[in-house]
Amino acid sequence: MANFDPNEHPHIRFNPLKEEWVTVSPHRMKRPWQGQVEKPQESEVPRFDSKNPLCPGVTRPNGKVTPEYDSTYVFTNDFPALLEEGPEPAPSDDPLFQAAAGFGTCKVICFHPHSDVTLPIMSKEEVRAVIDKWAEINVDLGKKYTWVQIFENKGSINGCSNPHPHCQVWASSFLPNEPMVKNRTQKQYYTKHGAPMLVDYVKKELQKQERIILQNNHWVWLVPYWAVWPYETMLLPRRHVLRIEDLTNEERDALADITKQLLTKYDNMFEVSFPYSMGWHGAPTGPELKEDNKHWQLHAMYYPPLLRSATVKKFMVGYEMLAQPQRDLTAEQAAEKLRNLPDIHYKLK
Amino acid sequence: MANFDPNEHPHIRFNPLKEEWVTVSPHRMKRPWQGQVEKPQESEVPRFDSKNPLCPGVTRPNGKVTPEYDSTYVFTNDFPALLEEGPEPAPSDDPLFQAAAGFGTCKVICFHPHSDVTLPIMSKEEVRAVIDKWAEINVDLGKKYTWVQIFENKGSINGCSNPHPHCQVWASSFLPNEPMVKNRTQKQYYTKHGAPMLVDYVKKELQKQERIILQNNHWVWLVPYWAVWPYETMLLPRRHVLRIEDLTNEERDALADITKQLLTKYDNMFEVSFPYSMGWHGAPTGPELKEDNKHWQLHAMYYPPLLRSATVKKFMVGYEMLAQPQRDLTAEQAAEKLRNLPDIHYKLK
Ligand SMILES: O=P(O)(O)O[C@H]1O[C@H](CO)[C@@H](O)[C@H](O)[C@H]1O
Ligand SMILES: O=P(O)(O)O[C@H]1O[C@H](CO)[C@@H](O)[C@H](O)[C@H]1O
Repeated sequence: MANFDPNEHPHIRFNPLKEEWVTVSPHRMKRPWQGQVEKPQESEVPRFDSKNPLCPGVTRPNGKVTPEYDSTYVFTNDFPALLEEGPEPAPSDDPLFQAAAGFGTCKVICFHPHSDVTLPIMSKEEVRAVIDKWAEINVDLGKKYTWVQIFENKGSINGCSNPHPHCQVWASSFLPNEPMVKNRTQKQYYTKHGAPMLVDYVKKELQKQERIILQNNHWVWLVPYWAVWPYETMLLPRRHVLRIEDLTNEERDALADITKQLLTKYDNMFEVSFPYSMGWHGAPTGPELKEDNKHWQLHAMYYPPLLRSATVKKFMVGYEMLAQPQRDLTAEQAAEKLRNLPDIHYKLK
Repeated sequence: MANFDPNEHPHIRFNPLKEEWVTVSPHRMKRPWQGQVEKPQESEVPRFDSKNPLCPGVTRPNGKVTPEYDSTYVFTNDFPALLEEGPEPAPSDDPLFQAAAGFGTCKVICFHPHSDVTLPIMSKEEVRAVIDKWAEINVDLGKKYTWVQIFENKGSINGCSNPHPHCQVWASSFLPNEPMVKNRTQKQYYTKHGAPMLVDYVKKELQKQERIILQNNHWVWLVPYWAVWPYETMLLPRRHVLRIEDLTNEERDALADITKQLLTKYDNMFEVSFPYSMGWHGAPTGPELKEDNKHWQLHAMYYPPLLRSATVKKFMVGYEMLAQPQRDLTAEQAAEKLRNLPDIHYKLK
């Protein structure tokens, strides 16, 4: 029998952060595609739209006015999923019917006053302003809340309801599922190995050089060994950093650089403004600020839904929902493809 | 302060099967929707299409011919995600780079020779034939494989590219993530309470009558307390049943009845063939057939993506991927809405 080749033979891989497996089916790349592969007419987003609540000077449906901002702009979501206070469910002693209070707040961060720009085509200084805002809001909301989730949904194909460049921040009094699991696994790893899991991981990836796409003095962009989405990636600092506000001035500049570079590669994949969900995970905050959280390492995740073209996405449905995620191209193939994409944005050529 | 009202006040709920929480934001139902609206689904499907590999008598791209079947028809997927054999990855002692063999097989079950029918408008006898096929394949593949995942992806909005009524069966040598977690949680519950979790759960739901939508002598259809998708539901037998093949003749007939009824309600929601992913979970098979699995209870899950209309779906993106699922309408509101839908299929009126 042939030797095992990860780019040829189906196998499963383990995600030590989530303690979950992914099914890898590289042989399936040969499957014919029945859907059409074509570039959609990219609708031009106007620089200003008097009906878009994220544009400067616009009166929002609830009567509030978005001010004439000229850099970033932060406000509380007009329809927040979490509220700062309210009645709490009574405690229940039935393990099958457990509810708890879930307080929090939901913010929107506009990246730029213009609707027709995106991070990769914004200037380095403008991207740096967004990074500083992320750090600032993590400190602000982190005073009170245990978890501050900074995330960006980009692209209508990805459920983003507004084309204006922006992200969201949902802060909560509870540790949500994903960070709860990562908190446990990273703690276990630290206890056993005496080092943070993701610091060790980046070191090993830098040695292997199989899944690294980009790196600079302070950051490493890679496809994790256990990636689920076709072009899922992770962005990690080289240094051990607990929270985004702990990044030095130099690290923030280097983050602005690599963010522009990585989003340029993404956009160049199908010559379209690449849809994704992204977000930051670092050590918890609120009451956790005074606890020992050295097992945590700051990292950003990018989860893009596209698979074969600007219009064909990977559906995580039946088998994925009920059993386990499945991918066709391997993490190594995805990294190679991303590595080989041009470094100059197709719109700036 | 007002009393806590689950249909009014945000809170979080616990899923004891997955040990995960869901954020419930009922106050958010008032939010306007500005995001992506999907193309309305194709309503006219031809009864026979000579290019559709699932139709009787059609030659598939790989040269094989789908026979002239007149009830159900099972065949091996021409591009299976799992293969029955092959080289295996070498063992690794690095906890951050773990791969394992993942063998298996992928089958397709056509429900009916006609492309223009769906389960709710098929006759009871025809649906019963599908149920018998599910039971048969679970026995067949379960001889060898630890997990036999029967699932259906329905609707192009939900990643299904073939409108012909069919489901899939992916059987694997390993226990995938979802059943692995459920195996653990159900075992823990059994050890502590001396009864299967989901048998207890159904009893309690029958007492409460808050989330039950339909019931007959053998089955209960409900919105689980911890539902994530807007109209997510669960279908459970009243009796303690480990695997689908253990269902009696009467239970299978009653399953055909309630399946037609529940899918009729789903279709009547937006008067459209309702998209969903569904599947069965029961006790594991293969080597597990001779182990004690009495902590398991057979159940089907339905995960429909639609939220507000036939064209507006719930996107599980940024916050959901990175932190925790979030829903707007409560499980109780969803159950009431489904309960009040007509019992006669809109196409048969
Ligand atoms: O097998 P199909 O119908 O081509 O594909 C569909 O179901 C599979 C199993 O859930 C998924 O992996 C695919 O992403 C989805 O499009
Ligand atoms: O807040 P938005 O952009 O309206 O909504 C989007 O992001 C939210 C947070 O991930 C999701 O709950 C919604 O399903 C999605 O459409």
